[in-house]
Amino acid sequence: MTDGLNFSRRLRRTPYTGRAEAAGVRGFSVVNHMLLPKAYARSVEEDYWHLREHVQIWDVACQRQVQIEGPDATRLVQWMTPRDIGRAKVGDCLYVPITDESSGLINDPVLLKLAEDRFWLSIADSDLLLYAKGLAIGRGMNVRIEEPDVSPLAVQGPKAEAVMADLFGEHIREIGFFKFAWVEFKGTRQLIARSGYSRQGGFEIYLQGAHFGPALWDAIWEAGQLYDIAPGCPNLIERIEGGLLSYGNEMTRENNPLEIGLSKYCTLDESIEYIGRDALQRIAAQGITRKIRGVVFDGGRCPTCAEPWPLMSDGRQIGQITSAVWSPRRDANVSLAMVNHGFWDHGQMITVQVSDGSHRNGWIANLPM
Amino acid sequence: MTDGLNFSRRLRRTPYTGRAEAAGVRGFSVVNHMLLPKAYARSVEEDYWHLREHVQIWDVACQRQVQIEGPDATRLVQWMTPRDIGRAKVGDCLYVPITDESSGLINDPVLLKLAEDRFWLSIADSDLLLYAKGLAIGRGMNVRIEEPDVSPLAVQGPKAEAVMADLFGEHIREIGFFKFAWVEFKGTRQLIARSGYSRQGGFEIYLQGAHFGPALWDAIWEAGQLYDIAPGCPNLIERIEGGLLSYGNEMTRENNPLEIGLSKYCTLDESIEYIGRDALQRIAAQGITRKIRGVVFDGGRCPTCAEPWPLMSDGRQIGQITSAVWSPRRDANVSLAMVNHGFWDHGQMITVQVSDGSHRNGWIANLPM
Repeated sequence: MTDGLNFSRRLRRTPYTGRAEAAGVRGFSVVNHMLLPKAYARSVEEDYWHLREHVQIWDVACQRQVQIEGPDATRLVQWMTPRDIGRAKVGDCLYVPITDESSGLINDPVLLKLAEDRFWLSIADSDLLLYAKGLAIGRGMNVRIEEPDVSPLAVQGPKAEAVMADLFGEHIREIGFFKFAWVEFKGTRQLIARSGYSRQGGFEIYLQGAHFGPALWDAIWEAGQLYDIAPGCPNLIERIEGGLLSYGNEMTRENNPLEIGLSKYCTLDESIEYIGRDALQRIAAQGITRKIRGVVFDGGRCPTCAEPWPLMSDGRQIGQITSAVWSPRRDANVSLAMVNHGFWDHGQMITVQVSDGSHRNGWIANLPM
Repeated sequence: MTDGLNFSRRLRRTPYTGRAEAAGVRGFSVVNHMLLPKAYARSVEEDYWHLREHVQIWDVACQRQVQIEGPDATRLVQWMTPRDIGRAKVGDCLYVPITDESSGLINDPVLLKLAEDRFWLSIADSDLLLYAKGLAIGRGMNVRIEEPDVSPLAVQGPKAEAVMADLFGEHIREIGFFKFAWVEFKGTRQLIARSGYSRQGGFEIYLQGAHFGPALWDAIWEAGQLYDIAPGCPNLIERIEGGLLSYGNEMTRENNPLEIGLSKYCTLDESIEYIGRDALQRIAAQGITRKIRGVVFDGGRCPTCAEPWPLMSDGRQIGQITSAVWSPRRDANVSLAMVNHGFWDHGQMITVQVSDGSHRNGWIANLPM
């Protein structure tokens, strides 16, 4: 046990947790029943500046993979998402909202097409494996669904490419955004994608074989010494400013993909069969009633947003903030909010009811901020 | 943020979290994307003695309900579990293992039969709602599946009945073990069950209406003053000695219900259709190869068991420990382990490889210990 979080096997350690501890991790979150480092020695603000200038190594093994393979794999994956995956090629990564029969969001993973009949869904925080299993059992589909021994490790920041090229060879510079390729590590073939949960560029290595975890961490750490590498984690300031949403924070099953800004990942084409299509067509025809937006507000450093904060206009609630943090670059608080129709224009003045009892003045902002 | 756990909306607060904070909570776990208090001012050992003698109030709102209702509700629930639910009556609580097509455990909830066509599954830590939804969508069943606004609050310990009778009336004494009834609270009808995650007796109130949470906590707190009530939580010492298993700790999808001791909750009857029946029949015919057991071991107070510890006999691994803690009553460490055939007899001597590097001598014990 550390203060604040009581450990148990149920909150799974990752192949990198030991290295994170050695690097001075002092806070975790829990994602997919697994530990996600959330703080090291430096403050979130120091980490923010470092991430924007240098390179960081992140233990994101909690991005578990749901492997779907077999003759019906493509049919099942397409059935789960409003995104048309028909033209996806092996080597592609696709951001795919997953919805239920009401078009409520169940997860927002990255899909990796490994072969014509084999996919990984690199998931956010919900047991998508159980949904996929339920669908396959219920419909009698010919697929195998499991969580393979795959533990992503992210290298993020403007110098990530240099570190990866030094370590794995110049060819990694050729990997396109949201594409993956293969590198050799300790005699094994490992998947590397140009992707990650920041706007600063970088890669994710989908390590197969948990026992290689410490060696992979050490190899990256060593290659990063020339580039001022630091241990890090998804940075709250950077992600909010960048408009990167978090499942469970900005969206839940109460939200549809259109209101969280994912219309470009949704087809309404009648020829594509997916769960919730009728509901999504109805929502699209009627128009959305609320939308995800940025909010900037003053009044000094805000506390942690651990539950939604009401967004007010003229004494009426017109939305809610779901993530918020002080931004040293803006010298103001930045946040993500679901905002009602009529109030979502850039520049709209609002008031935030913060959990510390204060009422803060602010305004609606386009994303990224 | 507290040290150790970084808060966000995704790790949901409960209707009682504010009261738990006021009562001095100093540690949480995360279950079903929700906070579970795990430590107050007193040590786990002081809490253990208190729980065995007096009464405690526990925020177990993380035991979320999966509500299944509609014409196909009974058919879906029966399909999900190897337990024959055919004779269940309205007012019954049933412990029901939930399995996949290989008879791997997906959850081990308590089923509450609210009406002939309406059930709650009070779940352990996995998104059973997504499995149920997948099955219903895949098979085209006529059911509605949702997570209702229900937040269980437990009152546990030998004096729980006296507190509940003072608060809600003498009729609660008539509620049988694993039965539920209704009480009046603030003009609403609330479900109360004689159940809970301890062997000391007690009740769980399945509060409907999160906004009543603080008032319910306060009412119980006040009624408990005569009985030395304290804030508490599932006690690791008491649960291990009592042989109460924890999903994600003692069992995962890698385990079948027979090896974790649930054969009395599994029918092999051909007339009952459920997922994984063929697999379970095969396992039953071949006999299980490992079994959940208690282990007592010495060498002084052990550290937190955050990942499985190998169980050794003559230099060979013959099992693993998944939960362990120092027991002041036994003056030894008590633990739960999955133990291979040939080594699971009461009294079998073994060695435990503890994560602090020590090797401890111990022996296999019957449950409860």
